[in-house]
Amino acid sequence: MPDFTAEVVIENKKMARDPEGETIARELISKGGFSEIRDVRAGKYLRLLVQATDKEEAERIVNRMSNALRIFNPVVHKCTIRIKSETE
Amino acid sequence: MPDFTAEVVIENKKMARDPEGETIARELISKGGFSEIRDVRAGKYLRLLVQATDKEEAERIVNRMSNALRIFNPVVHKCTIRIKSETE
Repeated sequence: MPDFTAEVVIENKKMARDPEGETIARELISKGGFSEIRDVRAGKYLRLLVQATDKEEAERIVNRMSNALRIFNPVVHKCTIRIKSETE
Repeated sequence: MPDFTAEVVIENKKMARDPEGETIARELISKGGFSEIRDVRAGKYLRLLVQATDKEEAERIVNRMSNALRIFNPVVHKCTIRIKSETE
């Protein structure tokens, strides 16, 4: 079976505050003079290698894992799963 | 000027250990029985909103910011910048 690369991004929901992103935006970017950068949101990134028959199955496995193992809190986090092209 | 969404992913380099990813792989995935998931690497994710004339300029700005503000350590981290489609 082929391996797929799956990316999982866990961000705070829009309505939830994101102190880390706010700090980067305020402290670093304003002080550095990068006024073109208008917003920063910080999150967690996971890159998984998943054995599956096709993209859809890979997505199902990662989705099931993310929910079963509670790698995010559905009340405040948005969890995005992207399956990238087959690895080899 | 249009706004572009830029994603910055900061991961440990392949040769560097990634204790967080290793822990997730070992503790969560092995115990949860998700044997299809063969590797986990953890990283940091930033989503930026950048004002620029085109994708290339947006990438230059984010690249310059990432290096100037040392948001990653080039010795151990790999920093990937992706500019996504224009936001409106």
